[in-house]
Amino acid sequence: MLMASLRKLLEAPTPADLAAIDPRSTPGLPKAARKAADPKAWSAAELATLGTELAGLQERMYASTRENGNQRLLIVLQAMDAGGKDGLVRHVGGAFNPLGLEVTSFKAPTKEELRHHFLWRIRNRLPESGHVGIFNRSHYEDVLIVRVHDLVPETEWRGRYDEINAFERDLVNDGVILVKIMLHISPTEQLARLRERLEDPTKFWKYNPADVDERARWDDYRVAYTEALTRCSEAAPWYVVPADRKWYRNWAVASLLVEILSAENPQYPPATFDLAAEKKRLG
Amino acid sequence: MLMASLRKLLEAPTPADLAAIDPRSTPGLPKAARKAADPKAWSAAELATLGTELAGLQERMYASTRENGNQRLLIVLQAMDAGGKDGLVRHVGGAFNPLGLEVTSFKAPTKEELRHHFLWRIRNRLPESGHVGIFNRSHYEDVLIVRVHDLVPETEWRGRYDEINAFERDLVNDGVILVKIMLHISPTEQLARLRERLEDPTKFWKYNPADVDERARWDDYRVAYTEALTRCSEAAPWYVVPADRKWYRNWAVASLLVEILSAENPQYPPATFDLAAEKKRLG
Repeated sequence: MLMASLRKLLEAPTPADLAAIDPRSTPGLPKAARKAADPKAWSAAELATLGTELAGLQERMYASTRENGNQRLLIVLQAMDAGGKDGLVRHVGGAFNPLGLEVTSFKAPTKEELRHHFLWRIRNRLPESGHVGIFNRSHYEDVLIVRVHDLVPETEWRGRYDEINAFERDLVNDGVILVKIMLHISPTEQLARLRERLEDPTKFWKYNPADVDERARWDDYRVAYTEALTRCSEAAPWYVVPADRKWYRNWAVASLLVEILSAENPQYPPATFDLAAEKKRLG
Repeated sequence: MLMASLRKLLEAPTPADLAAIDPRSTPGLPKAARKAADPKAWSAAELATLGTELAGLQERMYASTRENGNQRLLIVLQAMDAGGKDGLVRHVGGAFNPLGLEVTSFKAPTKEELRHHFLWRIRNRLPESGHVGIFNRSHYEDVLIVRVHDLVPETEWRGRYDEINAFERDLVNDGVILVKIMLHISPTEQLARLRERLEDPTKFWKYNPADVDERARWDDYRVAYTEALTRCSEAAPWYVVPADRKWYRNWAVASLLVEILSAENPQYPPATFDLAAEKKRLG
């Protein structure tokens, strides 16, 4: 049961102020969790329940669009390297029925993608009606890494905030429930996670030396994130989830999604056939 | 633990003989399950373990392709209506990490798709390197429903068996672990499932009156399936899974996939960077 509105607790104000949010904090956590001997076990148990709710809401949304409507859920995930995006997709995304789930991990753009407008590859991966889409990184990279590394002229990336707002407004007007989530970790936690990858041979493949170079630009990224969160909250708000504690992060995102989808309250559609006649046909 | 090779037990012989396979049978089921008071609970518990194994094998396959190689798993699912494809994707597909899972439900072809070769839309949905793809229906519809309803001239669909074999051989030669599964249900079980959908308002949306029309062509479909299984087992075998019992079906498919992926034995790759130097950089 939700004790507090996570939407209210996690929504980034404008202007955004990341320094004011402690990555180790646990806003909205119920008392039961604070008293739990093992918060990880508590979170895992809660996640099972929340996951069932999410899958149920997803099914209702899917069913509601079979004849009409085009409601879709699009979750946009952003974070610094090792911020927990992959883990979140596994633990929370894994609760959805894969039949109606479309996960896209956006990497460095290909040559083909670079020839197009930055939103081209994003538009190509929007979820279909009734589905849940998860963007693991997104169009926000085009005002984050692109800005930090001057990959395009400043006049170009400066124009993108407005383009993103217009794009997102179109999505929302076209039936997309847009949920933008920034997983907020501390540099200390990032360092611990990068070190972990070097200690475990089954994690070497996750280690990218370039992440350490990016780490040196932490402050630049903070500035870029702050502007993105501040300027691009028009069509849909940003939620900042303290993410140093993975068990809190998973619980918080699952709870937030349940809260948002429950408010939409999608409904199973009525029969589109003659029920009595069909019963008779089946004998 | 696997008591018997499900690959051997479930592989369709050539020529295929569906009449010889009882849809209520449970080949390969361990003694523990036969003795279990509640086989459904037994299956659910086993599925949790098998699911963890599947996700682990998926991660190793994914990791193994990060620098080189293009191994991918493609699961092709076919069945009569209400045969359990959706349920299987939910219960077994749901075990995979959604980051590397691509599910495609092929519906009646669109106008655009009809303008192309029948394999065009299939090729467009092949999983990327390291990923798991599930085809919920597939190119086999082009020798099943198309054949039963004479949607193209006989000379055309007759040529498709060879085209499918050539296509699948290319896939297998290009790193695809191709697992083709027919969920085999009885007409009696289908009837029960269709009736169920009429009894529950949350299932009306799953009911399609056209399924009842198709049901009348059961024998035609059996002929078409038999020929497809018989003629298209060159590049990769077909597995026929008795599917009247959902708990057996889920256990059998999960076990089959664990067996097949374990035999591939994908490995975590070695570090592609200077481990000592990186440790030093991280301090």
